[in-house]
Amino acid sequence: MINVVKIGGNVIDDPTALGAFLDRFTSLPGSKILIHGGGKEASRISRDMGIEPHMIDGRRVTDGATLDIVTMVYAGLINKRIVAALQARGVDAVGLSGADGNVIPATRRTATPVDFGYVGDIDPSYVSDTFLGMLLDGGYVPVVCAICHDEHGTLLNCNADTVAAAVAVGASRLGLTNLTYCFEMDGVLSNVDDPTSVIPTLTRDDFDDLRAHGIVAGGMLPKLTTALDAANRGVSSVRICRAESLGAPGGTIITAR
Amino acid sequence: MINVVKIGGNVIDDPTALGAFLDRFTSLPGSKILIHGGGKEASRISRDMGIEPHMIDGRRVTDGATLDIVTMVYAGLINKRIVAALQARGVDAVGLSGADGNVIPATRRTATPVDFGYVGDIDPSYVSDTFLGMLLDGGYVPVVCAICHDEHGTLLNCNADTVAAAVAVGASRLGLTNLTYCFEMDGVLSNVDDPTSVIPTLTRDDFDDLRAHGIVAGGMLPKLTTALDAANRGVSSVRICRAESLGAPGGTIITAR
Repeated sequence: MINVVKIGGNVIDDPTALGAFLDRFTSLPGSKILIHGGGKEASRISRDMGIEPHMIDGRRVTDGATLDIVTMVYAGLINKRIVAALQARGVDAVGLSGADGNVIPATRRTATPVDFGYVGDIDPSYVSDTFLGMLLDGGYVPVVCAICHDEHGTLLNCNADTVAAAVAVGASRLGLTNLTYCFEMDGVLSNVDDPTSVIPTLTRDDFDDLRAHGIVAGGMLPKLTTALDAANRGVSSVRICRAESLGAPGGTIITAR
Repeated sequence: MINVVKIGGNVIDDPTALGAFLDRFTSLPGSKILIHGGGKEASRISRDMGIEPHMIDGRRVTDGATLDIVTMVYAGLINKRIVAALQARGVDAVGLSGADGNVIPATRRTATPVDFGYVGDIDPSYVSDTFLGMLLDGGYVPVVCAICHDEHGTLLNCNADTVAAAVAVGASRLGLTNLTYCFEMDGVLSNVDDPTSVIPTLTRDDFDDLRAHGIVAGGMLPKLTTALDAANRGVSSVRICRAESLGAPGGTIITAR
């Protein structure tokens, strides 16, 4: 069993939440891979350096200077902090960008309709299960940030949800793989105003239905599309839940059909 | 044969020199490990963020904010740039800090006589040849920065020459290992005013003699002490030469006796 877990800003930006999460992550049985997003630190450091962050539809426009900043913050500061914190818990973590071991090759997104700059898209077919398998077999725990590369020398800023799905699809070629997205809610909600209205299971048909009725919208749409795609491509179980529910029941289970 | 090569600021800060160096590094036969220093980028970014760098005897005083900056710049920006550039050359590079795979545990330096802050010292006995051996056996090329950790969750800024020596000593437990320090001169000079006065071989006795006569001084002293220590601890060949001489004869060969 391989557990792929993705955490985002709500965990990364809060040292207490991160510590508690890493304790739970450490307790998970079997092989483990952690994927992390960036949180607010890149925007803070960008402003410190006099570069105002520029977002379109919640996605960061990544010019050359911004690519340097996200590379520093995601692959450097956040990644190594997490690695050191896991090592202190006895977990033999290895921090990776997608360029390391060519684990996640990406393709630069075209400049139309929106030019996001140095932003990449990922085909999970190309995730290196050789490299991941070597690390997992050796008892190491990959900690992966969302900086990937185009194999021609250019780093690319990718979406961490997509990286998590791609790594899980790659890992599923090595063995049964679970993917967990840690979320700021208990799961996918049928009523955004009711935090207890968690949808326990969600198929592609359910998703189409919820979308048609406007029940899921905004940032939830790409997250669920990515999750469904992972479920459809060999990941045994995909779950969206609160970070506090890692290793416990709850949340929304996404299934291919 | 394992080739451990260390580059410093004179190569890292110059994109043309770095590209030419990486071409030569790519052409080296056998297993390879690259160690890189930080160059001037950390100081530039530090100033951009309103933090004036503070050096004592050429060593960076590393308070908490500075530790974040060097972690970002060394383990993030420079490391991943080099990894991506090697991947583009068909070299399957894997970027590492000393925390990754617990490859280089360090000990925080005591605050007396000088408090350098989050700065670490390394005992080469503890370098993980298991992790390095797995990567080298798999055909991967480790690219190592000088950010290490104390195994209790704290990252530590270490000296890149020392990291190179420690990694070479660790690698020498796996097979015959050569260590090359790329330097801004052709080698160790017997006359600092004459760039052609390269000392071809240097033993511990030669070093003691040169130091007593003031011929080697300043930053060369710790570099040569580190080089001699590596030669004394099992590294087959230790050489100091210009980056342009990598893969070609020349420079100063340091031998244990």
